[in-house]
Amino acid sequence: MNLHIRNLDTQDFQRILPLVDNWWDGRKMSHLLPRFLFEHFQNTSFVIEKQGEIIGFLIGFLSQSNVHSAYIHFIGIDPNYRRAGLASELYTHFFQTVEKYRVKTVHCITSPINKKSIEYHMKTGFSILLGDQNINGLDVHSNYDGEGNDRVVFVKHL
Amino acid sequence: MNLHIRNLDTQDFQRILPLVDNWWDGRKMSHLLPRFLFEHFQNTSFVIEKQGEIIGFLIGFLSQSNVHSAYIHFIGIDPNYRRAGLASELYTHFFQTVEKYRVKTVHCITSPINKKSIEYHMKTGFSILLGDQNINGLDVHSNYDGEGNDRVVFVKHL
Repeated sequence: MNLHIRNLDTQDFQRILPLVDNWWDGRKMSHLLPRFLFEHFQNTSFVIEKQGEIIGFLIGFLSQSNVHSAYIHFIGIDPNYRRAGLASELYTHFFQTVEKYRVKTVHCITSPINKKSIEYHMKTGFSILLGDQNINGLDVHSNYDGEGNDRVVFVKHL
Repeated sequence: MNLHIRNLDTQDFQRILPLVDNWWDGRKMSHLLPRFLFEHFQNTSFVIEKQGEIIGFLIGFLSQSNVHSAYIHFIGIDPNYRRAGLASELYTHFFQTVEKYRVKTVHCITSPINKKSIEYHMKTGFSILLGDQNINGLDVHSNYDGEGNDRVVFVKHL
């Protein structure tokens, strides 16, 4: 594939928003992607294009509270290009970028029902942080992102 | 009033979330307050407490894309303490803090129907950026935060 990886820019907001709900089979995802993420975290967020079409993106940022830590908020891949290594390319690009800012640990979260995401993060070198419950062998943080929003919390040491 | 202003911390997430929907008369606001904001932007986000109760807070951050710019994402005040100068105290604290990081401009947005917010920002020294439409004398950016989400965009020069 003739792929091009570049930094996110503000114009990507209007391009990515309509894509994302489609990529998730109509499930509303756009509330997770407020415009400010596209404006203010461009140096640690990336887009992959193929012939000018966006087929994947990652939004992450440096933690201001802990200068040796970074956070990946969202990664989206066009379902027509799954299993093509795009996610891996985006993660690698993110890790290499934040390392230049002396980041030592990267955090991210996922839903306990998202088994594919959990599996993928484990393969990518993330570990699962101890939760307040263990459900079928999986450590889960109850109500982590608000009432009813249990999460699995990952950390990767760079 | 015996007020205490301090930096936001991660524990505030679980305390503030239930407050906010109440403060907005049951209107769902919590989707605007994901946990990562409470974890990663503590040095530029603040809480005002009175006798241990949170009665106001501001969440803002430094732009990574433009190092001389900062953004205020959310400000919430307990309606029982409106007109008591809490918002003003939070803004001032934010401006003074980001100035130490060599920030020159602060941005924020509001909905065009939120006349009180617009009035307040003008009083606080913000100007309104030129939009793509002018509705009854108000510059508005159409679909700024996604389809149907028109916004007024403010800037303040420090």
